[in-house]
Amino acid sequence: MGRVTSRHKVVRIDLGGEATRSIDTVAGEEPLEIRVNGSTFTVTMRTPGNDVDLAHGLLRAEGVISRREDVLGARFCSDLDTLNVLNLDVPGRGAELAVTSTRNLAALGGCGLCGTTAVDAVDAVVARRPPEIVWEAATVVAALDDLRSRQTVFAKTGGVHGAGLAVAASDTPGASDASGASGAGGEAVQDAQGAEPFARLDLVREDIGRHNAVDKVLGAALVTGVATEGALLVVSSRASFEIVQKAAVSGVSVLACVSAPSSLAIEAADRLGVTLVAFARERRMNLYTHSHRIPH
Amino acid sequence: MGRVTSRHKVVRIDLGGEATRSIDTVAGEEPLEIRVNGSTFTVTMRTPGNDVDLAHGLLRAEGVISRREDVLGARFCSDLDTLNVLNLDVPGRGAELAVTSTRNLAALGGCGLCGTTAVDAVDAVVARRPPEIVWEAATVVAALDDLRSRQTVFAKTGGVHGAGLAVAASDTPGASDASGASGAGGEAVQDAQGAEPFARLDLVREDIGRHNAVDKVLGAALVTGVATEGALLVVSSRASFEIVQKAAVSGVSVLACVSAPSSLAIEAADRLGVTLVAFARERRMNLYTHSHRIPH
Repeated sequence: MGRVTSRHKVVRIDLGGEATRSIDTVAGEEPLEIRVNGSTFTVTMRTPGNDVDLAHGLLRAEGVISRREDVLGARFCSDLDTLNVLNLDVPGRGAELAVTSTRNLAALGGCGLCGTTAVDAVDAVVARRPPEIVWEAATVVAALDDLRSRQTVFAKTGGVHGAGLAVAASDTPGASDASGASGAGGEAVQDAQGAEPFARLDLVREDIGRHNAVDKVLGAALVTGVATEGALLVVSSRASFEIVQKAAVSGVSVLACVSAPSSLAIEAADRLGVTLVAFARERRMNLYTHSHRIPH
Repeated sequence: MGRVTSRHKVVRIDLGGEATRSIDTVAGEEPLEIRVNGSTFTVTMRTPGNDVDLAHGLLRAEGVISRREDVLGARFCSDLDTLNVLNLDVPGRGAELAVTSTRNLAALGGCGLCGTTAVDAVDAVVARRPPEIVWEAATVVAALDDLRSRQTVFAKTGGVHGAGLAVAASDTPGASDASGASGAGGEAVQDAQGAEPFARLDLVREDIGRHNAVDKVLGAALVTGVATEGALLVVSSRASFEIVQKAAVSGVSVLACVSAPSSLAIEAADRLGVTLVAFARERRMNLYTHSHRIPH
């Protein structure tokens, strides 16, 4: 609903210190549908604000417009509750170019889960909530250390993201299946004290795009028969909606990202039952959702 | 052509020190077209390698497949020179879901310049090379300092990117039009010594997506009548192909990014005549293309 930032409850963990509860301000992330002359041109995930600038810049980059005069007006669709649909009035040559460009976008679009419809559709794809596996904070820290040490392309270029997967098995050090142990239902957790120290990530993949790094590591799990249900997924980037969505579809229980979360990532993780950890660095981390899976 | 990394010439500038020439290793960025049963499913910019994992992960996230057995085989199209087209053989229910999902991608795709065709098409959109404006290294550093100090949403959330525009005008401190001054053609530069210190960026915009931040600042320039021809564009993120493309379409002369460049970004900047600066932080920067515009 047009929020540049929003505030969310957070549990801050500092290994060696005490966990504290507070409120965190996170960046807004919402879909914007840009229409040209009433027809959908594209949908993009963005931080609300300066949407008219965004639409002009995007149409200019696509070659649809080149001057201010090419757009007669820009208006949010007033019959909708949200300010997430913006229509631009583009006459003449620009109108023709927009139709052609939309067709190219249709053939080449790579960002599939951008729209409001798609946001709603995620719940249908995610058949059930991820299992109640406990991952210790120390394991999350060790997994991120392991990811960094194995990002060989990053070490050479400084220009790629990494994603790593730690499998949840009954004999996996640092993880334990609490759902059966307590018999107290989905929210039950089991103290994992006494587990052996975390050894190493089962899979690591790198890519210039963070979505691709996540797709690669979860795809590798599918190809090689590594179980993702209940897994810990660590990612070197920030936590956006799409990364939460990909984790949830694969049954990942805990998603830990090095950088900031978005508002929509938190909302999706909350709804889909994923434990979302962000700002996980230097032996500290913030838990935004379902924090019961990480004892503190 | 399937390169995970590639090597490029670079000029390293350290304010207060000497400029040095060397070779830098950068992350590969190339389009991958994923086909399902012979039809295009999507195109994504990625670092070559583990493409079969990537395709499986993406199809799983889209809900097209859920088990390894849902894919009978994956093969690069052998009649093409590159390893950038991968076909997956998906029978039964998955084949139907792929068609539906492609249709959704078509309606909602937000990433328009991902394909090989689109990469080639950029040259057509960019009518001419950006003007030969000189921007001093000290100005680039000052502009990045100004960007950071004005990223108010980032200061609150740590979760957004920023883009800032400094206009090239004859009276703009730190920039000077050298094309007429020397009369020596496109590669001519004029020493900008003696210009007044850089004051502040003309426009700053923020967004959770780096492409959006760039679209917003260049769109705002279009809307408010701020000239982008010959401008300096500073961006808080890494430099990918699409950001170079957006800069070139708007006639930006110098693009300076805080993080790493990709291989395709360097190739595009070279071809389109944009001066590409990356790793611009802590009074240092690397010049990858058209370094004559930044005296050193």
